[in-house]
Amino acid sequence: MPDNLPSQENIAFFNGQLLPERDVGISIRDRGFIYGDAVFDATRTFNGQTFKLREHVERLYNSLRYLRIDPGIDPAKMERWSLEVVNHNYPLLPPGQDMWVMQRISRGVESSEPGAESRPTVLIESHAIPFARRASLYRDGIRVVTPSVPRIPPRFVSPRAKTHNYLNLIMGELEVHETDPDAWAVLLDESGNLTEGKGSNIFLVKDGTVATPQGRFVLEGITRSAVLDLASGLSLPVAEEDLDLFDAYTADEAFLTSTSLCICPISSINGARIGDGKVPGPVTNQLMAAFSDMAGMDYVNQYLSHLPS
Amino acid sequence: MPDNLPSQENIAFFNGQLLPERDVGISIRDRGFIYGDAVFDATRTFNGQTFKLREHVERLYNSLRYLRIDPGIDPAKMERWSLEVVNHNYPLLPPGQDMWVMQRISRGVESSEPGAESRPTVLIESHAIPFARRASLYRDGIRVVTPSVPRIPPRFVSPRAKTHNYLNLIMGELEVHETDPDAWAVLLDESGNLTEGKGSNIFLVKDGTVATPQGRFVLEGITRSAVLDLASGLSLPVAEEDLDLFDAYTADEAFLTSTSLCICPISSINGARIGDGKVPGPVTNQLMAAFSDMAGMDYVNQYLSHLPS
Amino acid sequence: MPDNLPSQENIAFFNGQLLPERDVGISIRDRGFIYGDAVFDATRTFNGQTFKLREHVERLYNSLRYLRIDPGIDPAKMERWSLEVVNHNYPLLPPGQDMWVMQRISRGVESSEPGAESRPTVLIESHAIPFARRASLYRDGIRVVTPSVPRIPPRFVSPRAKTHNYLNLIMGELEVHETDPDAWAVLLDESGNLTEGKGSNIFLVKDGTVATPQGRFVLEGITRSAVLDLASGLSLPVAEEDLDLFDAYTADEAFLTSTSLCICPISSINGARIGDGKVPGPVTNQLMAAFSDMAGMDYVNQYLSHLPS
Amino acid sequence: MPDNLPSQENIAFFNGQLLPERDVGISIRDRGFIYGDAVFDATRTFNGQTFKLREHVERLYNSLRYLRIDPGIDPAKMERWSLEVVNHNYPLLPPGQDMWVMQRISRGVESSEPGAESRPTVLIESHAIPFARRASLYRDGIRVVTPSVPRIPPRFVSPRAKTHNYLNLIMGELEVHETDPDAWAVLLDESGNLTEGKGSNIFLVKDGTVATPQGRFVLEGITRSAVLDLASGLSLPVAEEDLDLFDAYTADEAFLTSTSLCICPISSINGARIGDGKVPGPVTNQLMAAFSDMAGMDYVNQYLSHLPS
Amino acid sequence: MPDNLPSQENIAFFNGQLLPERDVGISIRDRGFIYGDAVFDATRTFNGQTFKLREHVERLYNSLRYLRIDPGIDPAKMERWSLEVVNHNYPLLPPGQDMWVMQRISRGVESSEPGAESRPTVLIESHAIPFARRASLYRDGIRVVTPSVPRIPPRFVSPRAKTHNYLNLIMGELEVHETDPDAWAVLLDESGNLTEGKGSNIFLVKDGTVATPQGRFVLEGITRSAVLDLASGLSLPVAEEDLDLFDAYTADEAFLTSTSLCICPISSINGARIGDGKVPGPVTNQLMAAFSDMAGMDYVNQYLSHLPS
Amino acid sequence: MPDNLPSQENIAFFNGQLLPERDVGISIRDRGFIYGDAVFDATRTFNGQTFKLREHVERLYNSLRYLRIDPGIDPAKMERWSLEVVNHNYPLLPPGQDMWVMQRISRGVESSEPGAESRPTVLIESHAIPFARRASLYRDGIRVVTPSVPRIPPRFVSPRAKTHNYLNLIMGELEVHETDPDAWAVLLDESGNLTEGKGSNIFLVKDGTVATPQGRFVLEGITRSAVLDLASGLSLPVAEEDLDLFDAYTADEAFLTSTSLCICPISSINGARIGDGKVPGPVTNQLMAAFSDMAGMDYVNQYLSHLPS
Repeated sequence: MPDNLPSQENIAFFNGQLLPERDVGISIRDRGFIYGDAVFDATRTFNGQTFKLREHVERLYNSLRYLRIDPGIDPAKMERWSLEVVNHNYPLLPPGQDMWVMQRISRGVESSEPGAESRPTVLIESHAIPFARRASLYRDGIRVVTPSVPRIPPRFVSPRAKTHNYLNLIMGELEVHETDPDAWAVLLDESGNLTEGKGSNIFLVKDGTVATPQGRFVLEGITRSAVLDLASGLSLPVAEEDLDLFDAYTADEAFLTSTSLCICPISSINGARIGDGKVPGPVTNQLMAAFSDMAGMDYVNQYLSHLPS
Repeated sequence: MPDNLPSQENIAFFNGQLLPERDVGISIRDRGFIYGDAVFDATRTFNGQTFKLREHVERLYNSLRYLRIDPGIDPAKMERWSLEVVNHNYPLLPPGQDMWVMQRISRGVESSEPGAESRPTVLIESHAIPFARRASLYRDGIRVVTPSVPRIPPRFVSPRAKTHNYLNLIMGELEVHETDPDAWAVLLDESGNLTEGKGSNIFLVKDGTVATPQGRFVLEGITRSAVLDLASGLSLPVAEEDLDLFDAYTADEAFLTSTSLCICPISSINGARIGDGKVPGPVTNQLMAAFSDMAGMDYVNQYLSHLPS
Repeated sequence: MPDNLPSQENIAFFNGQLLPERDVGISIRDRGFIYGDAVFDATRTFNGQTFKLREHVERLYNSLRYLRIDPGIDPAKMERWSLEVVNHNYPLLPPGQDMWVMQRISRGVESSEPGAESRPTVLIESHAIPFARRASLYRDGIRVVTPSVPRIPPRFVSPRAKTHNYLNLIMGELEVHETDPDAWAVLLDESGNLTEGKGSNIFLVKDGTVATPQGRFVLEGITRSAVLDLASGLSLPVAEEDLDLFDAYTADEAFLTSTSLCICPISSINGARIGDGKVPGPVTNQLMAAFSDMAGMDYVNQYLSHLPS
Repeated sequence: MPDNLPSQENIAFFNGQLLPERDVGISIRDRGFIYGDAVFDATRTFNGQTFKLREHVERLYNSLRYLRIDPGIDPAKMERWSLEVVNHNYPLLPPGQDMWVMQRISRGVESSEPGAESRPTVLIESHAIPFARRASLYRDGIRVVTPSVPRIPPRFVSPRAKTHNYLNLIMGELEVHETDPDAWAVLLDESGNLTEGKGSNIFLVKDGTVATPQGRFVLEGITRSAVLDLASGLSLPVAEEDLDLFDAYTADEAFLTSTSLCICPISSINGARIGDGKVPGPVTNQLMAAFSDMAGMDYVNQYLSHLPS
Repeated sequence: MPDNLPSQENIAFFNGQLLPERDVGISIRDRGFIYGDAVFDATRTFNGQTFKLREHVERLYNSLRYLRIDPGIDPAKMERWSLEVVNHNYPLLPPGQDMWVMQRISRGVESSEPGAESRPTVLIESHAIPFARRASLYRDGIRVVTPSVPRIPPRFVSPRAKTHNYLNLIMGELEVHETDPDAWAVLLDESGNLTEGKGSNIFLVKDGTVATPQGRFVLEGITRSAVLDLASGLSLPVAEEDLDLFDAYTADEAFLTSTSLCICPISSINGARIGDGKVPGPVTNQLMAAFSDMAGMDYVNQYLSHLPS
Repeated sequence: MPDNLPSQENIAFFNGQLLPERDVGISIRDRGFIYGDAVFDATRTFNGQTFKLREHVERLYNSLRYLRIDPGIDPAKMERWSLEVVNHNYPLLPPGQDMWVMQRISRGVESSEPGAESRPTVLIESHAIPFARRASLYRDGIRVVTPSVPRIPPRFVSPRAKTHNYLNLIMGELEVHETDPDAWAVLLDESGNLTEGKGSNIFLVKDGTVATPQGRFVLEGITRSAVLDLASGLSLPVAEEDLDLFDAYTADEAFLTSTSLCICPISSINGARIGDGKVPGPVTNQLMAAFSDMAGMDYVNQYLSHLPS
């Protein structure tokens, strides 16, 4: 780490070097900005330790291959620079906090010159997870609503690549937030099956089986995979399969997963109470405890500690 | 216009003020960058005069309403600032050139604070049209290829809003460019009908009728509308209708339109020669001449003048 | 009318005769009950006069032909019996009220005997329109929400037949009412176009044109047709065409029509304010006035008079 | 059981009490009648003993949750009242007969009063199975025809809920019966896969494997599940998978299942003879025998005994 | 015409020359045989005069362009050789007969040699129209049935090209003929709209309007076009639009058209009687008379004269 | 084998007898020619020995059942006649060559006479495999391109029957060959999943798993099955599942299979290099060696020996 970096403010990695974050700006002609022609990935820290960083970086490189962007640096370096950013920025957080660290690579600045080869833009940055804003979800459960906008299917642009094109998910979210600003949108697909929210995966529990939509139609969360592994470890049957609103309305339990949420219980879907409405249900509770064990800290408590007293 | 702007370099409008373009950078957390959660529009100049700026700004505000972004300034101001940018930057171009002027508005910087209201990011900038790169198209015609990636249909996110989410069109373009780097991609829709290219509309001429895909499934180009009007003015029957590869392969003539291309003839579609392969065909030629009249300059000649001698 | 009918209570026509309504019950094995294997139609009165009864009965017979049910009586008789029911029951309403009169014909009682021929069940009844419950809609406008459940397309069972199978529309309505009990659901079709609500048609007004979804995909309301005629009479351009959420969010005005609503303004769609949010907009207002003229009474005033004072 | 019930006529449970069946009538404004807004389930007796009543009642409650109807009584009571109806009515049947017992719950009577809460309508009734009408099917096999009307997919209204909306299945049946009144309709889905008939599931046998359409796209018959269990018990490989007309035309054997049919062989599909045309094929025969064992009586013989001598 | 052609037997044009028909055989490796990689067209004679031969040949050349087959001879020659075949073969027919004359062009013989250029196979032949087999249709009307197999949509291979790939239509026909050998199959499309039969177009008449499916989804019959022209000439409103089973079951009249049928009335669709069941209906009758006028002979009488006496 | 067959030229089986191949011609009215109403199958020889002839003949009879064609001879005879053709023709090949032997059965000659029963046309022939043309593919790998024309889905006509209707695959191939004459087309399905090429199946290898599209959507190659068996025998995990362009672009290896190709490596898909671009990859190489073992000869060497020296 260069000596000249300010010790009291956040840094970022940008196109080959570490810089004070406030000195980084994206070109107004960067394709990541003008077209969303970019990919990213994000992991979080638990007590300052990154969680499954390698898996996140591997997924990042699959996204890059799909978009045919060559980032110019290899996965090992991407990982190393990410740790540098974390190591510098984490101590700047208030105690009890944790953060995301994100890699973003765009195809570079649009050029109008014939033959001019564009170099990709590479950015690694971190920022705090909004624990306070979400704390009540762990006490009350998430209200999930399925908007009328369906999720873009893989043939148009694959949801398995984590890109800067989020408008489809945002249109769904806007629709839901107008009637219930605190609800979370989970989009259906063309066949009426549950897919994903903006950055989250959904699970249903029915008769003891832990089920989630097929990986082909969503961004396969690293947390999603971890939960499937945890469930198997607890001898719970798991299924990756089509799940529709009939499944949702007749489920015993339901929860969302994401890098930052880990596992968070759902209280209702489209206003239909899940199970008896108490969250978390027993299977969800078991998985949440197992997740905390794996993460090496009680992440639920971390969230709940931010509830206004 | 403030006195302190540099007279020898490009300026841009950014969040309320005119600045040297090189001083403008997009935040790494701007939703336009991280999600493509932004809209834009673009007109071009002919001899430094903007073309149908008002229509472009009107379309911009429809895009904004669709995404529910309030830009904070009204259309008249958007138009006026655009002219300021043009007036300053146009004289900096070499003679014989013209340029695009673009408005871009994102939902603003992502905030993780509960209740923090985000202000939209507003940018107006200009840059030169790549006449040299495209000059040969007016002599030889464009080779159009339809990639296997179909165009996202309106129900997922409407193509009628001009947004920063271009990956679907880019995936199609990448596919086409691998086998023919000079071909232009025009995507089909789910039903196998022609839709649009990245920023261009397609027209077919058959038995004298000038036809183009329905406006519901594409970004309705201002030039596209102008061509329909010109054709009507020339007493040519026009049609906005579904057009598939049967229509394409049996067409007499074909051409692309866009703000910068105006009207440019197509020589082949998927390698099938259009008509007798000579470009432009008689109807296309008639429309190109009428367009130059309307634009107040011979735009074809402007392009052809950039051919390497 | 038989002498023995009670003058102080409602009557109904049932399988060939007029009876006190309270004496009519549907068999527990009637196919209209166990399968929804039945059709119906409904007109309303204005000051006790039926509105376009002939058109409603004609539509009823088209529904019957689609389901291949022979009602055993001809349209003229269906009309005459309907008038008998109205004439008897209307005087029993409180002053200032009006009512629906409905014809319902099912395929008859399910028989388990081989060869047993089933006779259709024919019912004509009337009941009061809930003016008080709806009065505020004419003051504030209707909030429309599009649920995630799409409308069944014609190939499965045609929406142009008015049948007893309403679960698709009800599922949409339940979804909407959970988050906003006073909103009205309008379902999208598979392509994301607006279709209809439970018994209502939707119109958008944009740049002076009065547009509504194509008749092929909805129950073509008699009021819907009347509004198209009124608009033409007022020299307003009309269109029956696909209308999606882009059209909805960028519309100047919007309204619902139904037999009982006549024309009622919409204030928002999925929370997006229509126009400047004031209802009714100028074109809607013009059409509402024209409708009152045609109906022979100020129907808006009738509704508004039921507002709590 | 109340003393005042007639011992020589059928009774039914209706809204909380047992009544003579002839005294039960459905309100002309019951939502089960006017909208098909109701669910039901049905089991049959073998020698007067109900078959898998608990499983049927469980399925009924899933249907109720999907439609968000609270029946007001719990499953145990629903079961108990069903047995009461059977116990009273079964002795009234002629010897050698058996019957269905059905639970039907609608959302209740439509109310036009604001705030009026509707109570569900709950009905339990029984009636005889038409053995004579179907007897020849066990001798000759069923002719199955796939109509041009496809089955409604789950996203519009789920086939997994057993509701009063049967028009889609009835339209298919009408189409088939016009050209062959004795054929049974099995509808295809949008992708051309077999789904179900009106109350029946279809199975194909090929190279020893017993296959049936996936449970997600049909009403999952209790008999269907029982057959899958029986097949597994007989060490026959089973599959729940997409099956199309290629599978049907190249199958070795085929059969339908339903609560009342149990297992009944198919002789042809769309006129294409299944296997060598002799029914039942060996695997079907094995399953039929196993079913009789499980049911505790030779159900095939019961049917065949009703053949005209 | 060469002198050496036999005057008493049929001739055909084959790859550049006229030959006795019995001397013509297709190569076992002709792509027209092994892949159906060929196009054709067919006109008929009226009293030995070809009907709209030019229009048929033009359509043939559009089919060729779609498949990118260059036949090696121009339309004028194709027409001339067709007349040669007719002139030679027509006198060999019994009196009162007429015939089809067909052009067939395949891509030629499959070659396994690298670089070997294949020459197209060109065939022109004629054969008699089966008047006797069809005579009763003009007396009784055609029974139309829609099979469960839907028509291939244009995106897979366009129905507007008349090719040698007929299996989709044949699968539909086989399905229908199994239950009613004398019925004619008309396939639905994916959306449940009527398309076409094997070589025939369908028309519905409702409230005086003569309607037929859109030309984009069918082989646009030359007779179909002629009928639209005749109807316009008779001041009947015409429509090319989506028509589904609701339209079919509620139509007043219906008929099929084809080169050989000209106009033939339909008596029922899926067993649902059209209108009052008497054929032809008044509008159909008017069009049939007008067609005979245009053809220069009473074609209906020609058919009816072949009824067994 | 009859004595009178020429020993120095190829023979074929045609409608019941062996004939010199040059004496066999297909009727110009054979339904196999005019409609592609025919099925076929093809196996190849290795050193003159047919490979899995029985499996190919079984598949042929499934194709026949699907089209409802009765070939008039049983599978054992079909096999025996095929061997007769091979035994006669193989010695006529130059050394080092091998050949296909193909059975083709059409529904027979179209008859216009009422009641005239058509007899199927049965043909068995052989011809040389073009080793020289394909030799470089085993050195360089195949470039695969997915055209914009999608594969016809099973509901229209099943890809599992090997018929004479190949235009859909040919349209895809024409599109690809225009821009890259040496590329091989593999068509996508409606959902953007890989299906098959004209006579070839595609496999992807990722993280050691050998995956290929589901058998329901393609002609299930006998070689495809053999490869799945070989992979299992080598303890490689196998999967028959949906595979889309995301899978393709992120795969480690890829290859095509067909009767004549056996296993041939793919170097790129839509220009995206597969793995590190060297062919064959390690898993493919292992499978190719295993295939040669099974075939009893080094088939790769046979191909490579035809490379120009």
